[in-house]
Amino acid sequence: MAMMYNQMGLIGCGLMGGSLALALKRAGLVKQVVGYSKSPSTTAKARQLGVIDVEAKSAMQACAGAELIVLAVPVAATGETFKTIRQFVQPDVLTMDLGSTKQDVVQAAEKQLGWNAQYFVPAHPIAGKEVAGVEHADATLYHGAKVVLTPTPATAIDKVEQAQALWKALGSHVFILSALEHDSVLAAVSHLPHLLAFAYVNSLLGRDESERLLRLAGPGFRDFSRIAAGDATLWRDVLLANRVEIAGRLRELVLSLQQFQRAMHAGDADALEALIRKASVARSQWHD
Amino acid sequence: MAMMYNQMGLIGCGLMGGSLALALKRAGLVKQVVGYSKSPSTTAKARQLGVIDVEAKSAMQACAGAELIVLAVPVAATGETFKTIRQFVQPDVLTMDLGSTKQDVVQAAEKQLGWNAQYFVPAHPIAGKEVAGVEHADATLYHGAKVVLTPTPATAIDKVEQAQALWKALGSHVFILSALEHDSVLAAVSHLPHLLAFAYVNSLLGRDESERLLRLAGPGFRDFSRIAAGDATLWRDVLLANRVEIAGRLRELVLSLQQFQRAMHAGDADALEALIRKASVARSQWHD
Repeated sequence: MAMMYNQMGLIGCGLMGGSLALALKRAGLVKQVVGYSKSPSTTAKARQLGVIDVEAKSAMQACAGAELIVLAVPVAATGETFKTIRQFVQPDVLTMDLGSTKQDVVQAAEKQLGWNAQYFVPAHPIAGKEVAGVEHADATLYHGAKVVLTPTPATAIDKVEQAQALWKALGSHVFILSALEHDSVLAAVSHLPHLLAFAYVNSLLGRDESERLLRLAGPGFRDFSRIAAGDATLWRDVLLANRVEIAGRLRELVLSLQQFQRAMHAGDADALEALIRKASVARSQWHD
Repeated sequence: MAMMYNQMGLIGCGLMGGSLALALKRAGLVKQVVGYSKSPSTTAKARQLGVIDVEAKSAMQACAGAELIVLAVPVAATGETFKTIRQFVQPDVLTMDLGSTKQDVVQAAEKQLGWNAQYFVPAHPIAGKEVAGVEHADATLYHGAKVVLTPTPATAIDKVEQAQALWKALGSHVFILSALEHDSVLAAVSHLPHLLAFAYVNSLLGRDESERLLRLAGPGFRDFSRIAAGDATLWRDVLLANRVEIAGRLRELVLSLQQFQRAMHAGDADALEALIRKASVARSQWHD
């Protein structure tokens, strides 16, 4: 059974944080959300849209009295945020983040919170939209989504259980991994595809023919490149924070691509078909 | 206004050809479809599903008496098919293909049909599904789809107009390009993404961790890799037929990727953000 929280402090009223606030209120797990965003106009908009109930003037003010604290800021801002709110990360409060990388977040928590980092549960809901901003917040974003928690050996068991129950109550599927495993897996299934999609779209631009190219693009292009529309700030931080793992995955991709290039160059239809069939069978069998 | 055809000869009763037969019959543009597939069981299934009306025992039999002939075979089989049916490609018949590459198809037509290649209109509807086979044929597949016609300077104008009218009557958006332009554009917006998606999926496979990786894959992975489930025979032929153009586009991608790698390696957040923003803005503005 998930706990009920009288007050949630939300730091970062964007798509991810806003969606969580809406979902928790709709599920009756949170009574009141006090929200803070670095940009006052975002905080005001979140209030107008009913995503948060009270506008806080600072991250500290958002956390005062909260039983649940959620950091929904770009991952690079995690350390700074923890520094500001460290006094509120306490045994009777569940503190989580929503960041897409986890080793850097765990490090930042340990550095800024010290011993009290044990009350913080690093969380990454694998969900999102190609549009950012609180105006796209959606109470159903996490329903059916995969959520990875990456507690350290020091993390308090009861906090992990509380976090697990919270996400399950929203209809998410919870996985528990180490931060290292998380970053390695996500580099493969999320960060590398984003990097490829960004680089691919840019490779089409900047020439006279770009417009004609894009006019003839069809459904394959649409799906393949959808993630290239991702938020620049968020993905900048993710690609930087996890660059070592991503570079490793990119090397694997290049090796795989070279197999295709060799078969194409040699005109080896059988080898090429076998390579495509391997991918096609694996992708056809996958379902989320 | 689109012409009406009493009889359509369909060679290749798969997803693409079957969908066209269904669409033309539903639109009242074709009365009877005589179909042939290399595999007799496919031809029989197409008849049972009502995609074709009459099973032909050979490609020639499918074409005898047809006013509209459609080749819907893997592109590498185009030459051989034209050789078999060359006597039926005549001034009073509209002959089209549906292949994803066009320079090789035009060459095969000129070689096998000689002077009568002028009655053949090379066509490529940019549509498809991640599943192949006549059982997935869909009368609405081409509605709203982009269709590229690549007539040569020799192609009869009235045949191009007939082909154009036919596709427009199905709700498709028709573009006319040279075969070279087509192959260059499609290498960029379709063939390269397929190659990347195939190679990417294969790069995740074959290790103990593959299963765990795929279990944690989310909506980004789903969309990015959807086209990796494409038909192996079809894509083998496309990647081989258009390998020169694809190799050129791949080089552009590698250059673009290197810009990201440099920024990531240098930890240059501003440069990285600018690169991502360029892609994100372009992709956000695109719509099909």
